[in-house]
Amino acid sequence: MAGVDLGGTKILTALAGADGNIVRRVKVATGAARGLDAVLDRMVESVREAAAGVTLAAVGVGAPGPLDHTCGLVYDAPNLGWRDVPLGGMLRDRLGVPVFVENDANCAALGEYKRGAGQNCGHMVYVTVSTGIGGGLILDGRIYHGEAGGAGEIGHMILDPLGPPCNCGRNGCLEAFASGTAIAREARAARDGPLAGLETVTARDVAAAARQGDPQAGRIMRDAFIHLGRGLAAVITLLNPRLVVVGGGVMAGGSGFLGVARAEAARWTYGPAWERVEVVPALLGPDSGVVGAVALARRE
Amino acid sequence: MAGVDLGGTKILTALAGADGNIVRRVKVATGAARGLDAVLDRMVESVREAAAGVTLAAVGVGAPGPLDHTCGLVYDAPNLGWRDVPLGGMLRDRLGVPVFVENDANCAALGEYKRGAGQNCGHMVYVTVSTGIGGGLILDGRIYHGEAGGAGEIGHMILDPLGPPCNCGRNGCLEAFASGTAIAREARAARDGPLAGLETVTARDVAAAARQGDPQAGRIMRDAFIHLGRGLAAVITLLNPRLVVVGGGVMAGGSGFLGVARAEAARWTYGPAWERVEVVPALLGPDSGVVGAVALARRE
Repeated sequence: MAGVDLGGTKILTALAGADGNIVRRVKVATGAARGLDAVLDRMVESVREAAAGVTLAAVGVGAPGPLDHTCGLVYDAPNLGWRDVPLGGMLRDRLGVPVFVENDANCAALGEYKRGAGQNCGHMVYVTVSTGIGGGLILDGRIYHGEAGGAGEIGHMILDPLGPPCNCGRNGCLEAFASGTAIAREARAARDGPLAGLETVTARDVAAAARQGDPQAGRIMRDAFIHLGRGLAAVITLLNPRLVVVGGGVMAGGSGFLGVARAEAARWTYGPAWERVEVVPALLGPDSGVVGAVALARRE
Repeated sequence: MAGVDLGGTKILTALAGADGNIVRRVKVATGAARGLDAVLDRMVESVREAAAGVTLAAVGVGAPGPLDHTCGLVYDAPNLGWRDVPLGGMLRDRLGVPVFVENDANCAALGEYKRGAGQNCGHMVYVTVSTGIGGGLILDGRIYHGEAGGAGEIGHMILDPLGPPCNCGRNGCLEAFASGTAIAREARAARDGPLAGLETVTARDVAAAARQGDPQAGRIMRDAFIHLGRGLAAVITLLNPRLVVVGGGVMAGGSGFLGVARAEAARWTYGPAWERVEVVPALLGPDSGVVGAVALARRE
């Protein structure tokens, strides 16, 4: 089986053995600017390269944007410039095997559920804190999609309508407080300290400065994780999950702040729901998505 | 089949015909103060009275408090003074037929889903606005329970940690802003107008005054429904449901304000999720629970 994690900048493809463990990996640039066919060609080449000498039974794909997982139709993926792309069918025609497509956050949730921090916890919330904030819900042991594949949009729950502007056009979404974009925005606004005047500062720089003890960077990171905790509290109160798994690049760099999010979530979560839940970091790092894509192909 | 809606003040029991429609009803006081056995006796008598001359195959029960629906164990029902009561087993022993127990809000959700406003929408959120605020989630066509039967606690999502105190011991829960208790509290604080000085004013009085054009009562109701809309927005953004059904006594009296909640939810909900959802009043009124209990007995 093969899995493909299709991102806005790179395509990560993996071949798994009979036991589901990854035995080969291929990573290429997405090259979205060259158009749909060029991206499909790269995906197909990557799968063929990863699966060289092996007969594939199916391919799983994690793709950005809301999509219809039943037919593999991507509704809208701004990073790729795609609208209403029948990705599943187009890949199936090119590869000659069944192709199963899932939203990328759902795919990462599935990866962590099956082979990462999820430990097969049937009620699990996955949150990815990266450039934006996304989420995937594993409820009763299955990915929960909602009416139009849009379930899990944790990043767009509004914490404060008077908060900072969000990419979605509204104000005060969790993403506008706690994403990598938000952290970089706060750092750019810094007037002194090692971050001051760095126009190109990223969340990674802020996390690194915080780890080295810069108090301003620490304050920015802490504030982001406080808001993350508040958002998680609403999700935990509503869904009574066993586990919340937090992944994504910002989480990887700022894992020392997860305790801040946990403490804030404890204050805001309804007591009986808090008693049953653990909030833990993702285990698979950048592989969550591709591992989930393999699980998808295996119909796990 | 028979269904029982066990509440803190009354027990509503119904017999359904082969088509699932209710053909007979029995309503008695719960008499919780007399203790567990007395309440069980009343439930058994009610079922026997409702089912007189009919051979029952199973009984469904909606009961307050978080509970384990798989074995019918009620963890905690403060209104009844119950802790860890194996309600399902105790009723089965007395009635000699299988007994299926669900949380009351889940039961009402099931009732509306199967025979009310739900129209078999597989992704449906039910919210009851009454003395408190509860909720039930129908996801992928089934009741979603969460890890400890606690899913759907919409009333205890915190909207503002600086908000009014809630019965749960925290501040600013949706319930502390928009429940019947909250509406009555605001009315008691009124200094002039027809509500002033009424120590025993209820949410029903406020709703009635609002319908008769009292601006102060109208303001209190509007404020409650604005907060309801904000709470619904978080739920809709996270779950991408097709339908939100709002029931309960406060909703029944203040249905004219549902549009206020809808408008506020529209402002706060993530755009793609808002496109797919409708927010509608419950259709079954005080029968939602008992109709759901019948559906439970029928294993619908």
